[in-house]
Amino acid sequence: MNLVLITAEEAESGLPPDDARARHLRETVGLAIGGTFHVGVENGLRGIATITSLAPQLTFAVAWEKSPQTRHPLTVIVGLPRPQTAKKVLHDLASLGAAQIIFFESEKGDPGYLTSSLWKDGEWREHVLKGTEQACSTLVPKVTRVGSLAEALIGLDANAWKLALDPYEATGAPEISSPAKAAVLAIGPERGFSDSERAALRTHGFAFAHLGDRILRVEAAALVGGALMLAQLRAWEKHRPVGG
Amino acid sequence: MNLVLITAEEAESGLPPDDARARHLRETVGLAIGGTFHVGVENGLRGIATITSLAPQLTFAVAWEKSPQTRHPLTVIVGLPRPQTAKKVLHDLASLGAAQIIFFESEKGDPGYLTSSLWKDGEWREHVLKGTEQACSTLVPKVTRVGSLAEALIGLDANAWKLALDPYEATGAPEISSPAKAAVLAIGPERGFSDSERAALRTHGFAFAHLGDRILRVEAAALVGGALMLAQLRAWEKHRPVGG
Repeated sequence: MNLVLITAEEAESGLPPDDARARHLRETVGLAIGGTFHVGVENGLRGIATITSLAPQLTFAVAWEKSPQTRHPLTVIVGLPRPQTAKKVLHDLASLGAAQIIFFESEKGDPGYLTSSLWKDGEWREHVLKGTEQACSTLVPKVTRVGSLAEALIGLDANAWKLALDPYEATGAPEISSPAKAAVLAIGPERGFSDSERAALRTHGFAFAHLGDRILRVEAAALVGGALMLAQLRAWEKHRPVGG
Repeated sequence: MNLVLITAEEAESGLPPDDARARHLRETVGLAIGGTFHVGVENGLRGIATITSLAPQLTFAVAWEKSPQTRHPLTVIVGLPRPQTAKKVLHDLASLGAAQIIFFESEKGDPGYLTSSLWKDGEWREHVLKGTEQACSTLVPKVTRVGSLAEALIGLDANAWKLALDPYEATGAPEISSPAKAAVLAIGPERGFSDSERAALRTHGFAFAHLGDRILRVEAAALVGGALMLAQLRAWEKHRPVGG
């Protein structure tokens, strides 16, 4: 991990000796007193932590950044995929910096996926947290699940650039046509959108695009589609070095 | 898999009954006589196969496409990553349709990775083939390994758009500046490029770009970087439906 997510309390009290993060820092990274690592509070500030003691608590002093990182204005709506795929979508979209991920039960999807421990036992959260730490960010995407695409489309930003990836309906590659400030990307389940889902997308102002004539896996399409939209929104221009 | 890669001989003779592809079509997909699937010859034509017998050989008649799919003019140079990461890079860049993938032994990399069965036993090939089949393509990237970045840079297209992903040296997000017809993307190992590798990239006309202020995994950076370059080359505009 490139950053360790902690709570505001842990920034004061340190980490218990048997905490997985403390063990990782001591044993895997091999940090000693005086060693530094990136730290951050979930959805809050990041900083550079300097270890002040290794036992009993792993304590550290933090030089916090002056202002929080910017959240990217990207919502991704995905037809609920098989759990192994959902884990990758959660991780990679968290790393990309999506603000929100909405999984919908699609007409051509398999409702059995919902019985996975990923959703039943809240394991999904571990994957967005890991993706956020990988990105050296603290901004964890909001993750929701809804019963249909229609439900996912309620309340979207009316002025956002809205794109659905669909090789059958596509009119071209993703290309921004107006100066939008936010983006919404919709991706079907493995078997694609149904006709009524396509009609709902049209009603809500989605254009249809493809990523060329190669069929990418759901997790790859989500990552590539989201990145192409962020690049065209020029969301990456406020770049600054990590911790800077 | 979205397409089954076969040899020109197998197109005539069919597949032996215990062949993994024959079993997949019969048992997993559940195809019977008259059932259809996408088929293609490695680096050749694709077609729609209709099953004519299930035993003893699985035979099929193929309606071949009229002209081959276009190969994307993208070369990706990657610092040799750990084998688990290399497998994903091989799969995902094959799906994206890169023409060539060059792995180099980097100054900050771990030469121990070369002893993996992925490279020793040629297992790497299985991952590019799977990625190509996922993409419903027959165009398998050429994969090579070289001993240094300097060796990887020999003989590159002088007129290609050349970009290295490096958050420390970057001057902006990937943006094409001249009407190039081909692209070369360079990605360091997990610990990044060394100073002498950066100097070699500059000498060979590479610009440095970032993908925002989130740190992506090597496999995600390769996929996103490659896709952004293909999109800006307008390589996806000659899109046509699969088998069309």
